[in-house]
Amino acid sequence: MGLTIGVDIGGTKIAAGVVDEEGAILETSTVPTPSTADGVIDAIAEAVRTVSTGHEIEAVGIGAAGYVDDKRATVLFAPNIDWRNEALKDKVEQRVDLPVVVENDANAAAWGEYRFGAGQGHDDVVCITLGTGLGGGIIIGGRLHRGRFGVAAEFGHIRVVPDGLLCGCGNQGCWEQYASGRALVRYAKQRAVATPENAEILLSLGDGTPEGIEGRHVSQAARQGCPVAVDSFRELARWAGAGLADLASLFDPSAFIVGGGVSDEGDLVLEPIRKSYRRWLVGSRWRPHAQVLAAQLGGKAGLVGAADLARQG
Amino acid sequence: MGLTIGVDIGGTKIAAGVVDEEGAILETSTVPTPSTADGVIDAIAEAVRTVSTGHEIEAVGIGAAGYVDDKRATVLFAPNIDWRNEALKDKVEQRVDLPVVVENDANAAAWGEYRFGAGQGHDDVVCITLGTGLGGGIIIGGRLHRGRFGVAAEFGHIRVVPDGLLCGCGNQGCWEQYASGRALVRYAKQRAVATPENAEILLSLGDGTPEGIEGRHVSQAARQGCPVAVDSFRELARWAGAGLADLASLFDPSAFIVGGGVSDEGDLVLEPIRKSYRRWLVGSRWRPHAQVLAAQLGGKAGLVGAADLARQG
Amino acid sequence: MGLTIGVDIGGTKIAAGVVDEEGAILETSTVPTPSTADGVIDAIAEAVRTVSTGHEIEAVGIGAAGYVDDKRATVLFAPNIDWRNEALKDKVEQRVDLPVVVENDANAAAWGEYRFGAGQGHDDVVCITLGTGLGGGIIIGGRLHRGRFGVAAEFGHIRVVPDGLLCGCGNQGCWEQYASGRALVRYAKQRAVATPENAEILLSLGDGTPEGIEGRHVSQAARQGCPVAVDSFRELARWAGAGLADLASLFDPSAFIVGGGVSDEGDLVLEPIRKSYRRWLVGSRWRPHAQVLAAQLGGKAGLVGAADLARQG
Amino acid sequence: MGLTIGVDIGGTKIAAGVVDEEGAILETSTVPTPSTADGVIDAIAEAVRTVSTGHEIEAVGIGAAGYVDDKRATVLFAPNIDWRNEALKDKVEQRVDLPVVVENDANAAAWGEYRFGAGQGHDDVVCITLGTGLGGGIIIGGRLHRGRFGVAAEFGHIRVVPDGLLCGCGNQGCWEQYASGRALVRYAKQRAVATPENAEILLSLGDGTPEGIEGRHVSQAARQGCPVAVDSFRELARWAGAGLADLASLFDPSAFIVGGGVSDEGDLVLEPIRKSYRRWLVGSRWRPHAQVLAAQLGGKAGLVGAADLARQG
Repeated sequence: MGLTIGVDIGGTKIAAGVVDEEGAILETSTVPTPSTADGVIDAIAEAVRTVSTGHEIEAVGIGAAGYVDDKRATVLFAPNIDWRNEALKDKVEQRVDLPVVVENDANAAAWGEYRFGAGQGHDDVVCITLGTGLGGGIIIGGRLHRGRFGVAAEFGHIRVVPDGLLCGCGNQGCWEQYASGRALVRYAKQRAVATPENAEILLSLGDGTPEGIEGRHVSQAARQGCPVAVDSFRELARWAGAGLADLASLFDPSAFIVGGGVSDEGDLVLEPIRKSYRRWLVGSRWRPHAQVLAAQLGGKAGLVGAADLARQG
Repeated sequence: MGLTIGVDIGGTKIAAGVVDEEGAILETSTVPTPSTADGVIDAIAEAVRTVSTGHEIEAVGIGAAGYVDDKRATVLFAPNIDWRNEALKDKVEQRVDLPVVVENDANAAAWGEYRFGAGQGHDDVVCITLGTGLGGGIIIGGRLHRGRFGVAAEFGHIRVVPDGLLCGCGNQGCWEQYASGRALVRYAKQRAVATPENAEILLSLGDGTPEGIEGRHVSQAARQGCPVAVDSFRELARWAGAGLADLASLFDPSAFIVGGGVSDEGDLVLEPIRKSYRRWLVGSRWRPHAQVLAAQLGGKAGLVGAADLARQG
Repeated sequence: MGLTIGVDIGGTKIAAGVVDEEGAILETSTVPTPSTADGVIDAIAEAVRTVSTGHEIEAVGIGAAGYVDDKRATVLFAPNIDWRNEALKDKVEQRVDLPVVVENDANAAAWGEYRFGAGQGHDDVVCITLGTGLGGGIIIGGRLHRGRFGVAAEFGHIRVVPDGLLCGCGNQGCWEQYASGRALVRYAKQRAVATPENAEILLSLGDGTPEGIEGRHVSQAARQGCPVAVDSFRELARWAGAGLADLASLFDPSAFIVGGGVSDEGDLVLEPIRKSYRRWLVGSRWRPHAQVLAAQLGGKAGLVGAADLARQG
Repeated sequence: MGLTIGVDIGGTKIAAGVVDEEGAILETSTVPTPSTADGVIDAIAEAVRTVSTGHEIEAVGIGAAGYVDDKRATVLFAPNIDWRNEALKDKVEQRVDLPVVVENDANAAAWGEYRFGAGQGHDDVVCITLGTGLGGGIIIGGRLHRGRFGVAAEFGHIRVVPDGLLCGCGNQGCWEQYASGRALVRYAKQRAVATPENAEILLSLGDGTPEGIEGRHVSQAARQGCPVAVDSFRELARWAGAGLADLASLFDPSAFIVGGGVSDEGDLVLEPIRKSYRRWLVGSRWRPHAQVLAAQLGGKAGLVGAADLARQG
């Protein structure tokens, strides 16, 4: 089979890319993300048509945030777009005249990493994405684990602290409240308020106030050795690693892949995660350990993964 | 294929049974569990030989507590027997001259329920066993999910309370400290001390003291409406159901099966578990719900499951 | 000594009242709460002048939310008014030509209950106020315990859940996030979303949606037996009672007084609090137990207490 | 008033000392602690008689672990000796013919530090003792705060983790399970198992196994920079400091005194406690901060404090 298109629906723009069998992106096109549910569908179609010009395309894979049903056709629920039981596959197929496969965006990204990134050579992989929130995907025996109803691998919402932080999902103590980009910024703000003398570098990068701290400031300050920033990454890593240890108890993969913007910092965050992982891994003396690897495809993982899933039909 | 033997290694006795293709047990034999590691192997062989008399047996499946490696041959670690990297498959095969498959006992029980019990008709099943501790098994797409190294589905040791109760595994806050037969007794003892006026029935069933409370007392007292006993089951169900909601986020099965001694109480414990499960299930309005079913095979699930796994080779 | 004036600064109005030696309010006057820091001071003075007409007044006591210094003169920090190290005593004295005492409002309310309400006959009392948030006051040996710097008895912000709910104070897991009117509404909303079938009465009292639930709806629904409302009060009581048990370990008073809007429901909330308190009280068999009493003065406790504290000089 | 005797009842020996008005110990005598309840009383009397020879003694103060009633006469409950509602004052007075005052041992130690140790110059002091467990005492306005029934200041048993570690008192999540000498050893053992490569110094001081780690090993290893030992102290300090921040919210003292064996390490443990305290102190920008001081009297605080309390009658 030849070329397929992967589509990544972001909060501000929709990216479509032509991808070959080796996962290489031959060409991309982006359009701004419209504000209406129907507008997004039109924009997807437009991006697909634009990027496909001059290529022979066999299928389209769309990565969408939210619950996607077991037929990979309907978005049951999307957190950011007003899609409820939206027949996304049918609507896009009508517009682009190509077979369409819909997948949860974090699943698509996990698949991309498994096929063409850090997961190559492994058959059992659990991927977590530390972005604004926390998502992930599961590969078991070389197959994407979607669950019976299509909604598996919702890592961000397992409960890690009873009666813990309120989550947008309505529950409390969800993992993504403790291990995500948003959590990182909260850690930094709290520490900058409590011990401003240890946050000088961090505060100098923004508007000088704890409220003004952004994720990129924390990363930059940590690279410069700012104690509050380093400690914030360590706190994030404590929770991320403890959660991976739980996932090892459940899935027992040969590798974990850690992606998302937070992981761009590489060993600054990966090493503490590995330490925390080993700290909490049950029975660690008596079992082989999964590796904890950094993702390799960056922000392209979802697009490439969606394209490859479409290829597999 | 015809008949196989399933072996269940318990704390006090080892049971071997001849099982047919429909999961029926044709004959059983039990021997006391020896105290030495080698003694257990001899006893397994003896039980197998005894029970196989007069039957044409094709294979033997052994369910053992602990970590079993990915080749289903070696017990990496057993909690109750001094087996460390023990080549159980080879040693038993030498003694009984039949092909042997070794499996984690909770995995075997899950498989038994999936094939011949409450899981029939489902392809994606997560089974938890509320016995003294908390174990379980995972079936995905009709296959037992063993993990890359054979040690998946160690449900009892995922962390549900940071800095929580000390566990025998060395970690703190493990699920089995909150949802298991042992937890149930602890809940009852604590409540009987704090509010003895609500524990009269419960205390009358034992030696009259909170220390003397046993699991069977709690069950019996709950059936008689004893407030402390009912409340203890409710507390157990709170934790069991919340954990199932997490497992739904991860695995998204079509059914959960709840087994183990605690589940013998049926709806007395199942109904509160279902309620708690629905309470904590993320996105419950937008996704199909897995059923929460009572196990059907009771204490025979492990033996039957091990026999069937041996049949599958 | 004769008459004094108590002033209660609320979010919408400022109330001043002439109070006699028995705690009786002879006359009151209220003015709307201005939006500026100076405006509030002028309004206090105005209310004091209005209400004092025709009475011989000896002193003024002001109850203010926030930290009040050890001289009972300066508001170090107020949460709702832009007062930072505000010399409230001096400024009001200049305007009203009477001696002024400033006190934390929850301390003033505790003093009111101690002198003229539920605390009569006790010398060691801990009072908690379950209003929108959670405040309180401490009486030891018949004296208000203000602390070395005037900021004792900030009950709402002791940590009861590590890594718990975010609090307006910047910390996480503060008691008032779990035991307060705001917490009660959160419990009700969460339960109404998860189990709408048990929230029918509750939902019928508001706009029909979980988001529209208000505190008074929960109270009314609980009185009508609505399961979600009753369970929400029980959850609040679990946390309130466990906290009282901690306070008993620290202060060992002869009585706790529970005030604030939530306590208006009387035994509906007091009884579960008492149960939870006994459940968690350490060494309960070997020590005398403090009583857990409902406050008696309602919303007047702060005004009456402030007036009485001014009388004592 | 002249000389008094202080008695400290330890697990292995009973120490009696003659103490003057400046808190100086003029002479001491020790006897082994008998195993029977009556034997302990006889031994106290014997030690008092021995040490008083040649001195004119005016009163005896006894520090005893457990609940002491509001009359400072009866031990309501002792954890280590079989005393239940034991009329200790009367029984010892009969034997020694001197006025006797009984006090909780941690209260006595707090009083000793307040009068002659780190607390001099302060009127409002909260003292915590990090020994095997966690105890403490409270001085308010220059007076020992005993509570209405004599059982105040049981710091060790306030709940800091809901559903946390089991405590000997029957509850879960008590502070002393997280901040005490016993907790320190647990932290070290857990870390030595998980990351033995970071515990080499620590393991070399005992029998080479994590199980063999004792408190003194952790202290010595920490002074030598052993990562696991240092991290164990830091973990202890996290919990100790967070608890002090809560006590500041409640009591608002001008100083905290940290005593007990753990505090012998000085700034090794005090500095991390101070950091954690500042981290969690509510409203830290808007209030004066209590100092966190190391105790000065070591193991003599209880004896000296008991003697001084007897002097005060």
